[in-house]
Amino acid sequence: MLVKYVVDFSEGSKEQGDLLGGKGANLAEMTKLNLPVPTGFTITTEACLDYLKKKENISSDLNAEIRQHIIKMEKRTQKKLGDALDPLLVSVRSGSKFSMPGMMDTILNLGLNDETVLGLVQKTGDGRFAFDCYRRLLQMFGDVVCGIDKNRFEEQLDFYKSKKRYHSDTDMQAEDWQELVAVYKNIFLEVTHQAFPQNPYEQLMLAVEAVFRSWNNRRAVTYRRLHNISDSLGTAVNIQEMVFGNFGADSGTGVAFTRNPATGEKGIFGEFLLNAQGEDVVAGIRTPQPISELKALMPEVYQEFLTLSQLLESHYRDMQDIEFTIENRKLYFLQTRNGKRTAKSAFKVCIQLVEEGIISKKEALQRINQTMITQLLHPVFEPDELKKAVVFAKGLPASPGAASGTIYFTAEQAKKASEQGEKVILIRQETSPEDIEGMVVSEAIVTSRGGMTSHAAVVARGMGVCCVAGCEEVYVDEFLEQATAGDVILRKGDTISVDGTTGTIYLGSIPYIEGDEWQLLETITGWAKEGASIGVKANAETPADIKTALKLGAQGIGLARTEHMFFGEERIVEIRKMILAENKESLIAPLDRLKEFQKNDFRAMFTLLEGKACTIRLLDPPLHEFLPQTEEEIIHLANETKLTTAEIKHRIEELHEQNPMLGHRGCRLAVTTPEIYEMQVAAIIESAIEVAQKGVILEIVPEIMIPLIGSKEEMAWLRERLEQTIQTIFVKTNQVISYKIGTMLEIPRACLTAEKIAEVSDFFSFGTNDLTQLTYGFSRDDSGKFIGAYQEKKLLKEDPFQHIDEDGVGSLMKIAVDKIRHVDPSITIGVCGEVGGDPQSIRFLKKIGVDYISCSPYRIPAAILTIAQEQ
Amino acid sequence: MLVKYVVDFSEGSKEQGDLLGGKGANLAEMTKLNLPVPTGFTITTEACLDYLKKKENISSDLNAEIRQHIIKMEKRTQKKLGDALDPLLVSVRSGSKFSMPGMMDTILNLGLNDETVLGLVQKTGDGRFAFDCYRRLLQMFGDVVCGIDKNRFEEQLDFYKSKKRYHSDTDMQAEDWQELVAVYKNIFLEVTHQAFPQNPYEQLMLAVEAVFRSWNNRRAVTYRRLHNISDSLGTAVNIQEMVFGNFGADSGTGVAFTRNPATGEKGIFGEFLLNAQGEDVVAGIRTPQPISELKALMPEVYQEFLTLSQLLESHYRDMQDIEFTIENRKLYFLQTRNGKRTAKSAFKVCIQLVEEGIISKKEALQRINQTMITQLLHPVFEPDELKKAVVFAKGLPASPGAASGTIYFTAEQAKKASEQGEKVILIRQETSPEDIEGMVVSEAIVTSRGGMTSHAAVVARGMGVCCVAGCEEVYVDEFLEQATAGDVILRKGDTISVDGTTGTIYLGSIPYIEGDEWQLLETITGWAKEGASIGVKANAETPADIKTALKLGAQGIGLARTEHMFFGEERIVEIRKMILAENKESLIAPLDRLKEFQKNDFRAMFTLLEGKACTIRLLDPPLHEFLPQTEEEIIHLANETKLTTAEIKHRIEELHEQNPMLGHRGCRLAVTTPEIYEMQVAAIIESAIEVAQKGVILEIVPEIMIPLIGSKEEMAWLRERLEQTIQTIFVKTNQVISYKIGTMLEIPRACLTAEKIAEVSDFFSFGTNDLTQLTYGFSRDDSGKFIGAYQEKKLLKEDPFQHIDEDGVGSLMKIAVDKIRHVDPSITIGVCGEVGGDPQSIRFLKKIGVDYISCSPYRIPAAILTIAQEQ
Repeated sequence: MLVKYVVDFSEGSKEQGDLLGGKGANLAEMTKLNLPVPTGFTITTEACLDYLKKKENISSDLNAEIRQHIIKMEKRTQKKLGDALDPLLVSVRSGSKFSMPGMMDTILNLGLNDETVLGLVQKTGDGRFAFDCYRRLLQMFGDVVCGIDKNRFEEQLDFYKSKKRYHSDTDMQAEDWQELVAVYKNIFLEVTHQAFPQNPYEQLMLAVEAVFRSWNNRRAVTYRRLHNISDSLGTAVNIQEMVFGNFGADSGTGVAFTRNPATGEKGIFGEFLLNAQGEDVVAGIRTPQPISELKALMPEVYQEFLTLSQLLESHYRDMQDIEFTIENRKLYFLQTRNGKRTAKSAFKVCIQLVEEGIISKKEALQRINQTMITQLLHPVFEPDELKKAVVFAKGLPASPGAASGTIYFTAEQAKKASEQGEKVILIRQETSPEDIEGMVVSEAIVTSRGGMTSHAAVVARGMGVCCVAGCEEVYVDEFLEQATAGDVILRKGDTISVDGTTGTIYLGSIPYIEGDEWQLLETITGWAKEGASIGVKANAETPADIKTALKLGAQGIGLARTEHMFFGEERIVEIRKMILAENKESLIAPLDRLKEFQKNDFRAMFTLLEGKACTIRLLDPPLHEFLPQTEEEIIHLANETKLTTAEIKHRIEELHEQNPMLGHRGCRLAVTTPEIYEMQVAAIIESAIEVAQKGVILEIVPEIMIPLIGSKEEMAWLRERLEQTIQTIFVKTNQVISYKIGTMLEIPRACLTAEKIAEVSDFFSFGTNDLTQLTYGFSRDDSGKFIGAYQEKKLLKEDPFQHIDEDGVGSLMKIAVDKIRHVDPSITIGVCGEVGGDPQSIRFLKKIGVDYISCSPYRIPAAILTIAQEQ
Repeated sequence: MLVKYVVDFSEGSKEQGDLLGGKGANLAEMTKLNLPVPTGFTITTEACLDYLKKKENISSDLNAEIRQHIIKMEKRTQKKLGDALDPLLVSVRSGSKFSMPGMMDTILNLGLNDETVLGLVQKTGDGRFAFDCYRRLLQMFGDVVCGIDKNRFEEQLDFYKSKKRYHSDTDMQAEDWQELVAVYKNIFLEVTHQAFPQNPYEQLMLAVEAVFRSWNNRRAVTYRRLHNISDSLGTAVNIQEMVFGNFGADSGTGVAFTRNPATGEKGIFGEFLLNAQGEDVVAGIRTPQPISELKALMPEVYQEFLTLSQLLESHYRDMQDIEFTIENRKLYFLQTRNGKRTAKSAFKVCIQLVEEGIISKKEALQRINQTMITQLLHPVFEPDELKKAVVFAKGLPASPGAASGTIYFTAEQAKKASEQGEKVILIRQETSPEDIEGMVVSEAIVTSRGGMTSHAAVVARGMGVCCVAGCEEVYVDEFLEQATAGDVILRKGDTISVDGTTGTIYLGSIPYIEGDEWQLLETITGWAKEGASIGVKANAETPADIKTALKLGAQGIGLARTEHMFFGEERIVEIRKMILAENKESLIAPLDRLKEFQKNDFRAMFTLLEGKACTIRLLDPPLHEFLPQTEEEIIHLANETKLTTAEIKHRIEELHEQNPMLGHRGCRLAVTTPEIYEMQVAAIIESAIEVAQKGVILEIVPEIMIPLIGSKEEMAWLRERLEQTIQTIFVKTNQVISYKIGTMLEIPRACLTAEKIAEVSDFFSFGTNDLTQLTYGFSRDDSGKFIGAYQEKKLLKEDPFQHIDEDGVGSLMKIAVDKIRHVDPSITIGVCGEVGGDPQSIRFLKKIGVDYISCSPYRIPAAILTIAQEQ
């Protein structure tokens, strides 16, 4: 049996994109809808694949099929291909499943030759039109079929015009075009050593072969690589009767969107050119008119276009991008497809379509993606300005956004400059909690070390500040205050621009567009949260972050890092006194002061949250992170504590660790000095009682989370001590509230023994940053040194700190979830590492059965969306 | 039915230690063997437990049973308890399953009172003897039953003797003892407000109760805690007819071993006293005579003793510790048990017993334990001298042995002093590979930081040098050259003594006993290796270590750490040049030189191993470990490399890592700079070919092990590159040898994805040090800061770096083994971390199915033994 390689427009439908390509499927669909579509047919992608596989000419079968379909077209149009009196002319267009700019696109007016062009003159009485069509065919055919540089044709046209002192193409008369046709045909002979093929069938077959071959040209292959499009799809070819927009003042051609692709505003949006063909509208030689002006010129045509495009939009249930042609006041639709649009427009169109009852909320949610959200919320550089910008270096896209500013190498300088009203960018080898005040005032943060979960990256994402981390190619000399990449040296006070979305740093300042369409986002996340199977909470602790998080849709706080509250100037002194305490006695005073600070924080937190869930993690990092670094700070501390600087240095040395990530931190601090956690828990419970007493919030159930638990014994021991503290408060205040005590799952051993820990833990939260660090043995601060080489050599598909490593870390998490659920199916399990904000990871986390994820505020909308999309 | 709480000696046997206690069971056994054992019976441990449970007096049932058995004794002995003319006298002794010094022990002469003592005078015609017996009863009964301080009695005896100007007890006459009896009875009245009980039955019941109660006295409870003896065993009570060694010159008492408990030499070994009772032999008031002298004094008794003790030894199939009494030239056996002995004696006795056909090799192996091996191989301090020594500090028992020497704070000084012939001890905060030359010459190594697997500990164990690590209480100031603990400051040149078996550091010098019984050990390990189910290999790379390892029974090298070969002075310069190389070109020269060094090492290794298995691990530690530390070294390196010191410092800074354990090390170095591993593999293969060509060794199959693999992709990529290197050598040399390329399992992710890695790995070896580090998130260099607190609070049963953590790390290992075996059941899986040398861990490792373990040379015998014992 004969394989069917050709499908008439009347036989296909929009679902057949795989077989007919996007363009062919949509032409078939429009034909089915009885829209005015010039007649035609599609040669399928399978024909293309077959052709490419056999590496031969067009098969005789395919040739026969094409001929049959041409005959059908001839019958319908009452014209004949190559007919000297009334020739059938066709367009040949490529069209794969996904739009691909790299491929051969379009040949118009195919069927013209030295003979039929005269027929066309005869028939239309317009020699100027007919020869213009012919020269267009020669130029397009030469370019896309024979590979003749199209500038060779353009040059001749320009030369001719200047010879004749013509200013524009419209000055060209029939004879002029006819002369140019002769010149063009000579170019053919010169370049290909063959004459332009006069046989229309031969033209057609050569054009079809050229489209087939263009599937594998270098630009197309590269484009597919970049956009993750499979090489095995192939392209279809659409053969369609020509209609002519260049047939005088009653003809024209244009493109239009059914809604505004930039703003999403409702109403037709587009432009057209009278007496023009094909690419004239976008070529920029003549300035097109806005589509609204068509109304005055051809009211019936305009009305018909309006009606039919609305029909198309309703039918496709999305904003359409339509190409049309008017031939002698008759309207033809040549293409329709879902229109490309800005993030803002995408959101607005989705919301409108739902409000208009055209699509469901569920469908709307499927149409939003993470990139759109990022674009909606963060500034982006003006695309045209960006093209001109000079790249300084590339690093990791650690926190999205775009900003320009003056560079400084210390937090202190950044702060000072910012106070003078300067827009500043902080550059450091890596940031530490001590830099926080400089980071807060910066437009952007750049580091030369550290990965996607380094301090700089985590803090920047938390604050929504643009950040490029781990620019290993930049050598940052904080002493000389300069940053070197290659031959370029930047010094303090120089201006740069940072694109945190791509990880690129540019020299000088670049204008940018603000992104702050909160309301659109709120509508979408609101819909997404309806019936979501897993929750989304925020990693946040400052009032500003908590407000942002709630605005962006967080259903509570999944991770409040109490150590982030310790870095104010007043507080750090108390922390330092606590660390230097030589006995339990001298711990009391600094802990008392710290408790007051913490209580202020917790009261603010509980008040803002209005009863929403709040998981507070007790002190996590190693103590030496809090210690003074500079001689100045040591002297200051010596004055404060009445210790000698030598004693302080001795203590700093004692606290030094080879591998602080694996050292004396988290709950291990509480095992050696339980007073710290006891203070924190007292502050939490007392604050909760105090806020609840004000009576505005009905119930506050603080969730106290202990970090770095590795065994049941550890958890049981700490839990017992902390519960004693809590009971004492209940007795003292004569108040009782509910509370939970749970733990992080961030130590592999905790995952491997989770069924035991579950006996003494009220809830769990995976800390995927530490868990990944330990499961891989990759320090997130140091892995920048080799992770690039791993990705380059394809030894790591992805950075496991950005996307959950399903085979390794993920399987360990699955083991833990299964063990916990076995003991207690109802226990809450969350995720509060960086991957909690990553859509790809969320899909996996959902599969293994976690109850919620928690991420930095600006990643919340994408997380909510992903969950809704996976429902 | 009446529970039987009393068992006659003629009814029991040596297997009934649970019920009759050790002493009772052995008395029964000797009775069964028709040895001359005074008649008697045992009140069972169940009676004791029943008594303790009911918290009452002796039950009437038990009372009745005891009376019945006394009546039987009276029949057999033709004497009656309390008979004024010929009284039956008995001893009452406690006896639990395990010998327990904390418990009430013995009351002799029970049955004497004011009346019967006169009968005894009458019967024996010896008033001096009779009243001495009575005062002994009063004293012992007073002490153990009524809790009267025995010094009160001794004081009175001393007072009496000085009043009479007697020099010794033998000066005391019948009247003297009689007078003292009156004084002793007054002490009873004074202290207990009651008279000494005259009724022999009452004496007996009170004594039995006292023995029962002594099970729960504080010393006994503490002793059980310390020796892991269950509280629920209870003690038995033995009632036995008295025989009298204090019945004149033809009587006596003694203890003897059937072989020498210090040396294991064959032949009776012991001592005796004429005219003495009970504890007189060990009390030290009179000097006992060697047992050989009994031969001249009482040849028949001596001969009988010899014959019967040999009978006992053959019967018990072990060296016996025997107590005997001679009454009027009649020999009685009062106790026998397996004799306590030194490690040397234990080995020798075992070997002799096997040679004599008394026990099997298998049984012999069960009788050896790890402590004995340690004692056999390592020096120990003279126990008596140790008692007098002053402790300076305690740390972790990182490597066993004992040594005294002069302290130095730098490797350089230690080396210099050693060259002057001084015995030196190196004290440092922690050691690094740079210290190696100082460590080699030291008698002992002490560090204030680091755990059981810190650099100092691992290297010291490898070299068999005594080491105490992680003495956190000592502050080591390397600049001032002093070590402070509490108020004591040690300075360079002071002398200390270090006990690496207990982890104690003493002030001053302490004499010690050498331990070097290699031959005994070789016999035992030889037996142990017969039919062993899993192999034992060594972690070793220097010729000295390899020789030691082979001598101690290693069947090959399971881990040769190539980086240990890089620390010679010449070599480290080349390593540093390699690290500083700015491009591939400048890598070549240093790598070529390093290759020659490595080839020398590998040739020596292959030659020594004579074809035995040899697993060589490629470079593992982070490169910065090799970098210069001091300004001097930097200047030296600058001269060598023609770089500026600033450039070198810059590079050092670039290589700095926050957490080097999780950083750019192991195979990650090879992913970024494959040339290093390629050089190493070329050196291995070329050396193997060269040694094999000499023709002495039939076949060398080098096993190349890649450290720190975390994914199949990594392993596959490296394997491919290294195999290319190998193929090139095969072509160049026109020689082909077999080789294997495998990997460590030390990253949790490698365990979790082991089934994939198994597709590209020829063998596996668990690196439990790193695996434990990552699974727990405990840095082995830093965990000393908190692991003590964890053990104190019982949050960690054991240090997981010493004993495998079965629940966590172990379960991860099991996952890996199962996954690997699923892919290929025949693939070899070893263990080369520190726990490979730990018997407790070996039992677990055997269970999960590893093929061999590899440990430091000095731990090999214990490992071999454990495996044999588990067969």
